[in-house]
Order: sequence, then structure tokens, then C-alpha cells
Amino acid sequence: MELKIDIPAFDAQLIPQLQRKLDSKAKPVGSLGRLESLALQIGLIQNTLTPTLNNPVMLTVAADHGITAEGVSACPVEITWQQVHNFLAGGGGIGLLARIYDMDLWVVDAGVNYRFAPHPKLIDAKVAYGSENFLRQPAMSIENCSRALENGRSIVRRFHESGTNVIGFGEMGIGNTTPASALLSVFAGLPVEACVGPGAGLNGVGVKHKAKVIQAAIDKHGISESAIENLARFGGYEIATIAGGMLEAAACRMVILVDGFITTSALLAARAINPRVLDYCIFSHESDEQGHRKMLDFLGASSVLKLGLRLGEGTGSAILYSVLKGAVAVLSEMTSFEDAQVTNTSHIRI
Amino acid sequence: MELKIDIPAFDAQLIPQLQRKLDSKAKPVGSLGRLESLALQIGLIQNTLTPTLNNPVMLTVAADHGITAEGVSACPVEITWQQVHNFLAGGGGIGLLARIYDMDLWVVDAGVNYRFAPHPKLIDAKVAYGSENFLRQPAMSIENCSRALENGRSIVRRFHESGTNVIGFGEMGIGNTTPASALLSVFAGLPVEACVGPGAGLNGVGVKHKAKVIQAAIDKHGISESAIENLARFGGYEIATIAGGMLEAAACRMVILVDGFITTSALLAARAINPRVLDYCIFSHESDEQGHRKMLDFLGASSVLKLGLRLGEGTGSAILYSVLKGAVAVLSEMTSFEDAQVTNTSHIRI
Repeated sequence: MELKIDIPAFDAQLIPQLQRKLDSKAKPVGSLGRLESLALQIGLIQNTLTPTLNNPVMLTVAADHGITAEGVSACPVEITWQQVHNFLAGGGGIGLLARIYDMDLWVVDAGVNYRFAPHPKLIDAKVAYGSENFLRQPAMSIENCSRALENGRSIVRRFHESGTNVIGFGEMGIGNTTPASALLSVFAGLPVEACVGPGAGLNGVGVKHKAKVIQAAIDKHGISESAIENLARFGGYEIATIAGGMLEAAACRMVILVDGFITTSALLAARAINPRVLDYCIFSHESDEQGHRKMLDFLGASSVLKLGLRLGEGTGSAILYSVLKGAVAVLSEMTSFEDAQVTNTSHIRI
Repeated sequence: MELKIDIPAFDAQLIPQLQRKLDSKAKPVGSLGRLESLALQIGLIQNTLTPTLNNPVMLTVAADHGITAEGVSACPVEITWQQVHNFLAGGGGIGLLARIYDMDLWVVDAGVNYRFAPHPKLIDAKVAYGSENFLRQPAMSIENCSRALENGRSIVRRFHESGTNVIGFGEMGIGNTTPASALLSVFAGLPVEACVGPGAGLNGVGVKHKAKVIQAAIDKHGISESAIENLARFGGYEIATIAGGMLEAAACRMVILVDGFITTSALLAARAINPRVLDYCIFSHESDEQGHRKMLDFLGASSVLKLGLRLGEGTGSAILYSVLKGAVAVLSEMTSFEDAQVTNTSHIRI
């Protein structure tokens, strides 16, 4: 069971051209720090010296999790569907921040245990009414997991076709720090205790219990050589849908905004399918959920924001998008020494 | 020679009310991290449970520095006036980022060695055609320094009167990392070597020379008990103008966006005049100029962004402003559990 997705390699010859263009801007060389490295990455992603960010989309993917039957979450499961309604009405963290930062928010039902009425901003990609309890059986069958991956791909492809070149992924799913922790342990080869945290409100005893449940599940199912097998065993529908969406976004040369712990767990699976997806990713923040730091380390990633966020939903990505607007403008719009008639100091390097 | 400026104290009774309101939002308690603490601070600054950010202004203050005669800068001094023109035309780092982040940019001539033609966005607050070489005599006379402080106050008061409640300060002045380093040493009581860095492009030898010049100036003039005396001896016109502007902004209960190394050096002087100014400050980023980290430590401040910026001009503050829009919206606009009809989990604390 393997999935083949072609992701274009960057054109290395563009790097010195991008760097020269950045260095010609009317400012000391390198003085815009991370904005410049982000601009360079986005130039490579779009394969151009004048990148733009068009029709930014936030895709917040929701699903329920059978593993909640094991008491791994402090929150009642009905919050998943309630929050979907809340987001669609412009509420919650991501309903608010997508609006504030001018991202077009779409909510995806990938596997919520609720029958939603149609809504213009709700994408029906439901594969099941929640994943199975992966302490007892795989979270998803291989077929269902593959459907979720394909759903993510086709949703992203449609946005790409309508002109979107930057996409943020967020999630909503009570209990989903448990599959995310399991996927971290499985894909990064870390001990389970290093991968768990309080999620949305567990105490110390709860966190230990969560670790025990994950360890028992890993002992039961084992770890496969196949990324999709592992995703099916320990993941969830929103995670698989996001993983597929990320792979397609990279295949379409889109800028991928990676949010917190859950979204990054989807990237672990996507990376195991095609590691080149990482080139297209920008990491918004480092979540206060401890496993997220470990994911970023494993991926060699450095997040742009340090805001102590641990909400998910795409909230960190919405703020990141705002920073990227500045980064892209530095490369595409900022005046050079020449056009500003400012004495050129780009020969001065520190 | 002392300056008395009344700055209102926060109403401590508002803190639990603000916290309750934040905790009632439809999200795990505290999960929006720094956005929540920023929202709380802005609520206290504006003395309200529903803060707003109105008519945001970026004030980029420019001046020249006599100390450049000592070879403390890698850049030619004409860049100061050239960049003023560039900013006014929407160019440079701050011309670009103020536009991208919807801040109203005004450039202030506090003491540039150039005669500018009038321009609708240029504020003429010139006290002199640059400061004196403070290795030989005080950078400013007490009278001139006081005029610059008063200029900053009256400029900010006018913006306040026209409805601005959030103001960013930036600067442009070839050579101004030297006065900023000197002020750090003087106000924080740190050895000069700990306060200097490469600025816009000095090499190691240049940095050592800069430290020697500053040490010789401090040995010559001594350190006064009076904040204004110290500012006059070692500061510069943009720094004094910004210091006055910050004090007035705090007196008017405005949100102050603090940019990089130079702007923070102005805050050191403002704080020595009235320490309560700090309550009104939000620190955008930690500059790569090493002295900036020391300033933030001395002030007990933690910056919001870690972007490796070292440009100044107000560029960090422009990005910060964008983050604050989200913070304020969390407090003033985000749905609560109740109005979103989401099961209340605010009793769960981690």
C-alpha cells in the first residue's frame, strides 16, 4: 500500500538570484532576518523572483476519535461538532483570526460524529462518523485512510485550480492529541512518554493514562514499514485528510502553513510518503504542547512565532500568514538602493 | 533639570474582570498564550473590557549624529536624508511594511543634516542639523535636548487628539547605534563592551573602536543623576524626540509599540524620567544587535517576535501591530462558550 505523489524539486539556480535581489534592497544586507529567508523560500516554492500570495485559504479539518472512549481527553466529544458550527458562524479562534487576517476559512468534515446540514463554507468529506478506538482495532481501515488522503488531495487541488497559492491547515477534533502523540512516537521513533502532554486540559494522572493507552496500542498493532499503514492504525480522519492535502499542495507548488501539534503530526505522515513536502512548509509557531517541540526538532524545522499558542484550529497559521505578507513584499515590492537613490551599502557584510 | 509627566496607573480591579472575560471564550483556558496576555495588557492600557486599535500611526524619527566623525559607522551619513526621502515615497523597510500592515507612516525630521522641502507626511521637528560629536562635547545642549523631548510630546499629543490610540516608534540615523550603546551602558550600568555591536555593518575592529570611543566619552562627561543630562550628553535628536513621544503616549493611555535597539534606548531614557511608561509598552522583537537583548533584560521585557530583525525604522513594530490586531480581537470579538453554544470547559485548567 503505497501512494506516489510527484513533488517538484526547487531550482537551485534561482537561489543566488533571489539572494542578489534581496541584497539589492535599500537596507543593510540581511537586516530583515527571518523575513528574508521566508521570502527566499517562497520564491523557490513559486519558482519566481517576484512571489505573490493569492487567495489565501484556511482549511480547518474536523473529525472525532474513537480513542476518547479510553478517557484520554478532558473535554466532552460534542465539542467537535459544536465548534464546527461555531467556526462556520465566524466564531471560535479560527473563525475570528481567519477574518482578522483575511484568510478564506473553509471547514472540512472529514469524520465528525454528527450529521451536518449543508453550509456554503462546509466541505463534506466525511469518511465515517469518527475513527475507531485504536486501542482495540486500527483507527481507520486502509481503505478509509486512503479515502481521507484522497479527499484532502482533491479539496486542495480545487483551491489550486481556482487560484489559491497559499494554504493553511488547521484542525478540530476532541481527543486528537492522542493520535498525534502516537504518530510522533511511531514516525520519529521516540518513547511515548516524550510525546504526550495535557492537550486541552488533562492533569498529570490523565497524561500518564494517555501515555499508557498509546503504548498499549503500539504494542498491539506494531509499527509498519508503510506510512499509510501507520497512519491508518494510529491516526484520525482529519489527520489523514490534512496529510493528503499537504502532499497535493506541495505537488501544486503552494505555500503550506503548518499550525500546531495535530497539523504537524499530519505532516509527519505526509513526509513519510514524500519527504519533499517539507520544502513547501512554513511552520507558524511552537505549541506549548511539549510533543510539538519534538516534532519540529525531528523535522529540522524552526517556527516563525513564539506565542505560547496551544489551541490548534489553524490559529497560528493565520497569524503566520500575516507575517508572510511582509516577507513576500520585501522581495517583490521593496525599493532597491538603485530605485530609491540611496547610497548602495550592499558590499558591507557583517 | 527634571521633567514631570503624569502617567496613569492601571486599575488593578480590572485584571480579574479581563481574565474572566478571556476565560469565557470558546477555547481551552489560556490556549491563545501570548495573544491573551497582550489583550489583557491592552485592556488595562485602555481601561476597558473591549479594547480597540484606532488610527494606528508609525512615527519614524530621523536625525544625524556628530559622533560619526569618529568613524563609528560603516555607512555614509547621507543615507539618513536619502532614506527620509525613500520612506516618504513609500520605500525602504518601513515605507513598505507600514503600507502592508495598514499603519499611517509619518516621518519626523528631529535633526537631520539636510534641508527638506515640505512634504505632507514629513513633520518638521528639527532642533539642529545633527547632534554634536559627543566624544568632544555633549551630543545636545540641555535646552536642545528638552526641545526634542517636547517636540515628541506635542507630536504624539496631536495624534492622540485626532483619535490615534496605538503608536509605533521607529528611527533612521546613520551612526545611532553608538548613542544607543552609550545610553544602555549609562542607564543600565553595564560595561561598554557588553553594549556595542556591528550596527549596520562594522567589522570586529570597528566594533572595538566604537567601544573605545564610547568609553572615552563616558570618562570625559561622567554619568549624571539626571536622566535628561545623560540623554543630552550621549543621546541624539531622534532618540530624545522618541523618548518624549513615548512619555506622552503613556500619559494619553496609548499603546506604545517599541521597535529595536535605538527605539529601546529612547525608552531607557523615558523610563528614567517616569518608569510607569513601561506599562504602556509592547516590545516587538529582539534585535540581532546584541545590546538589544541586554536592554530587554534590564527592562524585564519579553519581545513578541523572534525574527532576527536588525533594521530598525519601525519595521518590527509594524509586524507587531498585525499580531496585536488578533490579540485585541480575541478579547473584544471572540465568541464565548455561551454565545457559541459550545459546552463550557473553562473549569478545566492545566
